[in-house]
Amino acid sequence: MANVAMLGTGLIGLFYTMSLHGKRSRDKVVVVQGRDPEKTRAFAQKWGIPRWTTSLEEAVGAPDVDLVVIGLPNHLHKEAVTAAARAGKGILCTKPLARTAAEAKEILDAVEKAGVFHGYLEDLVYTPKTLKAVASVRSGAIGRVLWTRSREAHPGPHSDWFWTKEKSGGGALVDMGCHCIEIGRSFVGKDVRPVEVVCWGATQVHPIEAEDSTVGLVRYASGALAQFEAAWTFRGGMDLRDEVSGSDGTIWLNHWLRTGFEMFSTPGSGGYVAEKAETESGWLFPVGDEVSALGYDAMFADMLDAFDQKRAPVETFYDGYVVNAIMDACYRSMETKRWEPVVLDDWRGRAEAPGAGVHVEYDARHWLIKLERMPDGRQKLILKDKQTGAVSQRVE
Amino acid sequence: MANVAMLGTGLIGLFYTMSLHGKRSRDKVVVVQGRDPEKTRAFAQKWGIPRWTTSLEEAVGAPDVDLVVIGLPNHLHKEAVTAAARAGKGILCTKPLARTAAEAKEILDAVEKAGVFHGYLEDLVYTPKTLKAVASVRSGAIGRVLWTRSREAHPGPHSDWFWTKEKSGGGALVDMGCHCIEIGRSFVGKDVRPVEVVCWGATQVHPIEAEDSTVGLVRYASGALAQFEAAWTFRGGMDLRDEVSGSDGTIWLNHWLRTGFEMFSTPGSGGYVAEKAETESGWLFPVGDEVSALGYDAMFADMLDAFDQKRAPVETFYDGYVVNAIMDACYRSMETKRWEPVVLDDWRGRAEAPGAGVHVEYDARHWLIKLERMPDGRQKLILKDKQTGAVSQRVE
Amino acid sequence: MANVAMLGTGLIGLFYTMSLHGKRSRDKVVVVQGRDPEKTRAFAQKWGIPRWTTSLEEAVGAPDVDLVVIGLPNHLHKEAVTAAARAGKGILCTKPLARTAAEAKEILDAVEKAGVFHGYLEDLVYTPKTLKAVASVRSGAIGRVLWTRSREAHPGPHSDWFWTKEKSGGGALVDMGCHCIEIGRSFVGKDVRPVEVVCWGATQVHPIEAEDSTVGLVRYASGALAQFEAAWTFRGGMDLRDEVSGSDGTIWLNHWLRTGFEMFSTPGSGGYVAEKAETESGWLFPVGDEVSALGYDAMFADMLDAFDQKRAPVETFYDGYVVNAIMDACYRSMETKRWEPVVLDDWRGRAEAPGAGVHVEYDARHWLIKLERMPDGRQKLILKDKQTGAVSQRVE
Amino acid sequence: MANVAMLGTGLIGLFYTMSLHGKRSRDKVVVVQGRDPEKTRAFAQKWGIPRWTTSLEEAVGAPDVDLVVIGLPNHLHKEAVTAAARAGKGILCTKPLARTAAEAKEILDAVEKAGVFHGYLEDLVYTPKTLKAVASVRSGAIGRVLWTRSREAHPGPHSDWFWTKEKSGGGALVDMGCHCIEIGRSFVGKDVRPVEVVCWGATQVHPIEAEDSTVGLVRYASGALAQFEAAWTFRGGMDLRDEVSGSDGTIWLNHWLRTGFEMFSTPGSGGYVAEKAETESGWLFPVGDEVSALGYDAMFADMLDAFDQKRAPVETFYDGYVVNAIMDACYRSMETKRWEPVVLDDWRGRAEAPGAGVHVEYDARHWLIKLERMPDGRQKLILKDKQTGAVSQRVE
Repeated sequence: MANVAMLGTGLIGLFYTMSLHGKRSRDKVVVVQGRDPEKTRAFAQKWGIPRWTTSLEEAVGAPDVDLVVIGLPNHLHKEAVTAAARAGKGILCTKPLARTAAEAKEILDAVEKAGVFHGYLEDLVYTPKTLKAVASVRSGAIGRVLWTRSREAHPGPHSDWFWTKEKSGGGALVDMGCHCIEIGRSFVGKDVRPVEVVCWGATQVHPIEAEDSTVGLVRYASGALAQFEAAWTFRGGMDLRDEVSGSDGTIWLNHWLRTGFEMFSTPGSGGYVAEKAETESGWLFPVGDEVSALGYDAMFADMLDAFDQKRAPVETFYDGYVVNAIMDACYRSMETKRWEPVVLDDWRGRAEAPGAGVHVEYDARHWLIKLERMPDGRQKLILKDKQTGAVSQRVE
Repeated sequence: MANVAMLGTGLIGLFYTMSLHGKRSRDKVVVVQGRDPEKTRAFAQKWGIPRWTTSLEEAVGAPDVDLVVIGLPNHLHKEAVTAAARAGKGILCTKPLARTAAEAKEILDAVEKAGVFHGYLEDLVYTPKTLKAVASVRSGAIGRVLWTRSREAHPGPHSDWFWTKEKSGGGALVDMGCHCIEIGRSFVGKDVRPVEVVCWGATQVHPIEAEDSTVGLVRYASGALAQFEAAWTFRGGMDLRDEVSGSDGTIWLNHWLRTGFEMFSTPGSGGYVAEKAETESGWLFPVGDEVSALGYDAMFADMLDAFDQKRAPVETFYDGYVVNAIMDACYRSMETKRWEPVVLDDWRGRAEAPGAGVHVEYDARHWLIKLERMPDGRQKLILKDKQTGAVSQRVE
Repeated sequence: MANVAMLGTGLIGLFYTMSLHGKRSRDKVVVVQGRDPEKTRAFAQKWGIPRWTTSLEEAVGAPDVDLVVIGLPNHLHKEAVTAAARAGKGILCTKPLARTAAEAKEILDAVEKAGVFHGYLEDLVYTPKTLKAVASVRSGAIGRVLWTRSREAHPGPHSDWFWTKEKSGGGALVDMGCHCIEIGRSFVGKDVRPVEVVCWGATQVHPIEAEDSTVGLVRYASGALAQFEAAWTFRGGMDLRDEVSGSDGTIWLNHWLRTGFEMFSTPGSGGYVAEKAETESGWLFPVGDEVSALGYDAMFADMLDAFDQKRAPVETFYDGYVVNAIMDACYRSMETKRWEPVVLDDWRGRAEAPGAGVHVEYDARHWLIKLERMPDGRQKLILKDKQTGAVSQRVE
Repeated sequence: MANVAMLGTGLIGLFYTMSLHGKRSRDKVVVVQGRDPEKTRAFAQKWGIPRWTTSLEEAVGAPDVDLVVIGLPNHLHKEAVTAAARAGKGILCTKPLARTAAEAKEILDAVEKAGVFHGYLEDLVYTPKTLKAVASVRSGAIGRVLWTRSREAHPGPHSDWFWTKEKSGGGALVDMGCHCIEIGRSFVGKDVRPVEVVCWGATQVHPIEAEDSTVGLVRYASGALAQFEAAWTFRGGMDLRDEVSGSDGTIWLNHWLRTGFEMFSTPGSGGYVAEKAETESGWLFPVGDEVSALGYDAMFADMLDAFDQKRAPVETFYDGYVVNAIMDACYRSMETKRWEPVVLDDWRGRAEAPGAGVHVEYDARHWLIKLERMPDGRQKLILKDKQTGAVSQRVE
């Protein structure tokens, strides 16, 4: 059980506090820190938090605080982490860890040097569906991972600082691509090295400088391709989907817009439907338990259990650093218009990852390329001669 | 925070303990009771429960126990409740409360006479989707409730006693119809009186005496019809769906087989896919977080919060009694082959429920029957003359 | 190839003509008949029909006409069929065949006495999905049919006469229940006798006399239960779904609202989305090819091929008569509030239909009730002693 | 009405003939040509085709033939087109038109020089859903097209020649990417110039030389990005999905695996489920009318109507040439690992395509970046100062 200092009173701080004070009712936020005194006081009052402050130092330095949770804009992460590490507190930081890999490395070094507990709050890796799907992949249910697709798209973020490049570090890539990249990495295997990246980004709709839409391809050492799509231009709510294609199976996840809850409402649902829903009447797609579906519950359970048990959580600052390194390569690729290597000075995974498939032998002379059921019920075999390479077919 | 005595070590006791010791980690099971010493000891060990016993009296009478959770076969509920009430403990009892309304009334009287806390463990009313959908209905999002459908179907229950009529009190109706009936009642409004019932039941597949398939229609005082379908004959996994039709909207819920998680697996998922899944390879539909999706987490949160706050939970033994009364009428209807009144000697809801719709006036002379968009884009109005009753149409 | 006289210029005549002049381009409508001269003339012009008339006799009596297609209100079917039969023409009549079984029998007798070709235009039995699903059931893909559900619901019909009981013969039951009943019958097997019926109907929303919502249960000689739901009170578009539960499998069909076409539109689709769609913006669910999805194309292909080949089509007036007999029993049941026999003076199917399942033997002493996979991967067997009837369980 | 010479007796020739002799029953295949005499004779007999031959010249030269339909392997297209053009016949050619843009240009030049009718048999542009979706996009239902995704994936093609690079011209890109590219182009607008491409391809599973998986991004002059994914490595059946993201809306199409037809079968469906289905039991997803769902019916209706009416069909050899040019750039990009220009010596569309969005003004001083509904029901505005570029937020 931990006493928490919550830094930030925006939507992220709200979701975090709802999750900590909801299902995870053992741990308590004992102090909340925000820039705006009035808003911070109201936040503390609403969530039954005993103290509030506008001072970062005061929040992280409080003697009764065990753990600092950072829900601040991206450009404030380094300062907050540094202060908390100095105070010797455990630290959980929201995503992305930093604006660049270099900044992420400084943050990582700070906590490792201070020897404090650190967790990277990548909630979407912790959704109930993702956790179960990753476990299925690890247990071999779909064979070797060949391709993943992770998509997060909605009409744009909640807060003004997100739309300002120097504060956020970028656009849709930094905001949501970071989720998608870590989801893809989790399916491919976090010990498999991300080798290179090609990425497209454009400002298609909004009057801003950063990209509001991006698509990227990350190639891993195993030969797997992890594709991501992140956009602030999507219409219709929040699109949160993942796909995994393996040599022996397939996984499709839909976390938000099609989860088995469908409502048609003429009068409208009276305001809030679901995060980023765009309409209040007509066909609506609410989510049963948003905080759980977004992974917050399982994420804090892992983080706080890990803190109690003095073990590393599933997502650490090192993961945040790898994600930043991939994003850096993406931004370079947008400029150079070519595949760019992922630069990881500090790689802690496997050096190599054998990816080549084992060919299936049909008989002493042939490899089996494919077996197919025909409309008339017979089976067709496509075979390759091992010697000549000639391809032939047989119907049986 | 409560110290719990868990009665029963079957699948229900398992799910209950998983939920209590999982997300709801504040409360602890301090003693578990079961018939089979070996199984009970193993259960205690697996879940970190300090004590186990085969004696009901010992379990419910333990001084450190605040709350007794009954996860026993139906024919043992009355004895267990009586013992726990005598010991002055709070009591949570699994569904159905009893085998008949008469037995349910004895159970209800026992706890009310003893003045102890009581909660009816109707988990499917507490699924995240049902909770949100009921709230939407109450807030008027779909207008007046006209019709509901609640369906629970799978290939049959887990334990032998369920298949023995004297122990369970019946078949699919008692096992799963009780869920569907209370879900329908929750959408219609729990203060609206269930008036009458017609019900079909048959033994279609299994070599048993009780019905393995049943469909019933419950008519409420508001004019709403709550339809339920319960079967032990379904193939393909567990079918858990609800529908609500209102004067101004519609709700469709799918809790289990289509929730946004789809997997194709050739090697198979290595065993367990989801509760009552029938296949391990091919297209599979796992559930992200089963304990949450089945309502256990939210149910125990409400029950234990209510216990702490000394208020009634959403589902009490009175609700269990009403459900038993509706099921009694269903069984009578299967025999008499006609609509049967729901006999409720103790009705605590509203005496009347105005259901008639308010007609929409088109102009001084006409009611509006309908307004429709034509394929060519024009609008067609169907009108009824208030005086003559004549129906006419206009295209605008 | 046939020359067609089309009777009726409403939405049904429109869909029929679109289908005949669309994919089925061999056959031609050579004359169209309607009550309103202006509308009829415009209809003829729009669809390239050479002649139009307001006279039924003229239309059906034209020497070049081979086939009369009746798309008229229910109360005009008998007169139209009689006139066409007298003229010796082949006849296709829209659903329901008549307002009562007695009237349907008169119509059936008229065509059989005249020896003319007759087809019952029950389009929803001919949707691509229904045709393939019925074929799968017949080939044994889901085992013995136990239960079917057919549902058609929307906010109400297109034309004024539908809302007037003496013209239509009833409400949602006569309008849409007839579809659902014949779909259920097609899955159960058209040679299996419908034995008895229980039915609920109510006027829940509209200012009319007939039922605007109905649910019925039809019990067949095989033990199968065919459930139908028909409503003019549904909100959200047109709900067209079927379900079939068999001893060895399950079928779910969605013909309209969820067919793999989803659109979110802020400006709106500019008018028409799909038949009975209620909204033009927000989330919309168009149907790719409506005329095909509603079964019109396959229905006319069967009807006109049958006419050419001088064989009976899949749906004849006899089927229309059986449907009317079931609906008569439904209306009686609404009055008597009990199960009512289906009165079929002229039954042409099998006298008996063996329905009882064959029990599965586990060993010489036991029947197998059920086999289930446990969360821990082991298998649990539920067995019944053949002698004593005692139920027991084993985990392997 | 046309007399058709069908070249090819493989799966493509089969589907084409089924479609021509099915719904489109006006036109007739009068001669079929194939390499294997026995197979060709059997094909002719099965489909009621009066003549068969192994001679290409004989088939295309027959005096009663109006139209030649080419369903041959890719490396035989040029020869077949040249022969048919020389004979002065109308020509329909399956996809891809050629193995390279240069070869496609020769084919295009041949028909244009001969002045004969030509249609490019790109069936997936003609599926009922695609046709309606493209029409919705053109009518403005989703605003300006920003991004499209077209995906076709299955476990690999039917015939041996597809697996041999010199015959097919490549792997999954040439086989299925050509579909996806033309679908994307249809949504973006066929008069909008494809500018450049980046493409990944790899041989992940099969023992072949060509790519069995590919992902590409095509950037159009309007700024739209058309993404495609084609794979012979997918498990679970045939994945045919399209997505379109517009400034004012979204479209999602699923043509094959989730179309509202779901079946669970223990005994299995007795053989054929749907094209490229991989399992015969468990959960299956049949398609109601495969020939229609794959676009064959609407494609031949357009092609043959166009031939009758002496107009160009929706898809001509020019479209085939553009697709080949895009694929050429894709293959170059796989080699150079950078964006490659699409080389179109013969561009017939618009020179420019204005893509920039019109910014929405909030007031004289601000652009509106975003408007969002908060969980508490209030609205939040994100604004950009037109002068300073500063981003701010307001809650109303």
